[in-house]
Amino acid sequence: MSADTQGQAELIRAADIADAAFVDATVGIVGLGLIGGSIAHDLAAAGVRVLAHDRDPLALERGLAAGVIQGPLGSRFERLPEVDVLLIAVPVDATLEVLDGVAQLDPQCLVMDVGSTKTSIVRAADASALGSRFVGAHPLAGDHRSGLAAAGQGLFRGATVYLCPAAGVAPTLRDRAWHFWQRLDAKPQLIDAEEHDALLAWTSHLPQATASALARALLAADIAGDQLGPGGRDTTRLAASDPDMWSAILLDNASNVGDALDRLTREIETLRQLIASGDRTLLHRFLAEGRAFRV
Amino acid sequence: MSADTQGQAELIRAADIADAAFVDATVGIVGLGLIGGSIAHDLAAAGVRVLAHDRDPLALERGLAAGVIQGPLGSRFERLPEVDVLLIAVPVDATLEVLDGVAQLDPQCLVMDVGSTKTSIVRAADASALGSRFVGAHPLAGDHRSGLAAAGQGLFRGATVYLCPAAGVAPTLRDRAWHFWQRLDAKPQLIDAEEHDALLAWTSHLPQATASALARALLAADIAGDQLGPGGRDTTRLAASDPDMWSAILLDNASNVGDALDRLTREIETLRQLIASGDRTLLHRFLAEGRAFRV
Repeated sequence: MSADTQGQAELIRAADIADAAFVDATVGIVGLGLIGGSIAHDLAAAGVRVLAHDRDPLALERGLAAGVIQGPLGSRFERLPEVDVLLIAVPVDATLEVLDGVAQLDPQCLVMDVGSTKTSIVRAADASALGSRFVGAHPLAGDHRSGLAAAGQGLFRGATVYLCPAAGVAPTLRDRAWHFWQRLDAKPQLIDAEEHDALLAWTSHLPQATASALARALLAADIAGDQLGPGGRDTTRLAASDPDMWSAILLDNASNVGDALDRLTREIETLRQLIASGDRTLLHRFLAEGRAFRV
Repeated sequence: MSADTQGQAELIRAADIADAAFVDATVGIVGLGLIGGSIAHDLAAAGVRVLAHDRDPLALERGLAAGVIQGPLGSRFERLPEVDVLLIAVPVDATLEVLDGVAQLDPQCLVMDVGSTKTSIVRAADASALGSRFVGAHPLAGDHRSGLAAAGQGLFRGATVYLCPAAGVAPTLRDRAWHFWQRLDAKPQLIDAEEHDALLAWTSHLPQATASALARALLAADIAGDQLGPGGRDTTRLAASDPDMWSAILLDNASNVGDALDRLTREIETLRQLIASGDRTLLHRFLAEGRAFRV
């Protein structure tokens, strides 16, 4: 057997073992919204046992009735000792609270969140008893919808999932986090938490802020949503996102988002001047450069 | 027969006559892009004869090969006398040129354009020999795509089509224009040309300008398109639109678009301040009001 073939065989064996561990695992989910609920859907389809908690008892009942969760995790996470992987899938400000409660129980499992900002959360985990078992995760999936009703199977297929391990995390748990998201057909990617927040300010938080500001401008001009064409609907779609979730994200990443908004304002001012001056050549160049971003 | 039943029977008979006229008609199309090409697709499916011209001979050949047009209109519109309805489907600046050429031929048919701005075009038609036979049209369909390759059947199904008749247009031709778009399953709506341009500055031109400015801001931050999630992709989709078409639209509606951009800038500035000040309550209200526009 060549070294290459041997290496490949070892990788396949490792993947098999990991797969077996995945199916045998019990996963705990706190928060059955779009992300938590969709994770439960995928896990249930793969035959994985899911225990869940949601502050809304109705969400829990619906998850049980739909067969995507197998039992309650408990409002004080009483069944945490049964869990191999715990996912905290609540808004970023609530994540810090849940993290604190979980840390006090000193669990032995891998703990992940799914929030859109990572610096403050990973920092809090590092400073807690969870430092050796926390991996911050951020799946770049979902859209303007929220809640269990919007959840479903396959949400993470092909989606980038940023992973920000706590500084002291055990390598086996970091690998387990990677494998977990791979099994949901996502594409995990390791990234430093601060680098993540600086990047996401542009790729996610700025588009959200832009859509909200645009929707407010249209409201101020007495425009109704059904007066938009397909393009206007696309551009304002994110304005329908959950204000609870997004006020927490924008405040947690305030400095980076502020820089991004400043840049957007400068671009709009440039565009405004090109239109007012009637400079067709430069206006065309402005639009063509924007187009280059998308095609 | 009651008056109501009689009235209904008359309406049905009028629709039948109009339908027969529609199928027997020959339609001329100048410009086989997304809109012109899609009109040709719908007409061909309904058995209507289409003669077309495009400055790109390849577009004409493709339309003929696909069976969506039955012959050339001629580069100098030589076969215009055969045409019952002429559609000018080129960018708004080129529309003024085509309109001038067509007016000199003194055609007897209904003439429509499909441009995104209406004031300058309807004004030019009014001032020309076409004043009695011109209806400006603007189908609120299509997206960031352009060209015949993107064209297809059913693009106008359920879409609003704004109609801005020239001041002196014959009522029968105005009705014919209305019926034409109804037959493409669109929803025609009469509107004054200046009112149209003031409205569309908000519902269409502002979203386009916003998407382009956002794409430029992301480019400036070295972000690549594939780093966006589903929401960021939605918000920047319009940036991929044709810069030729859009530089003409934005310049033709410069004053209205300038007002809309000013309002957007103020909303962004408000949002920027709310995030910097950390005012969760007011930030939540800002986002919730934007959400009200979409849900």
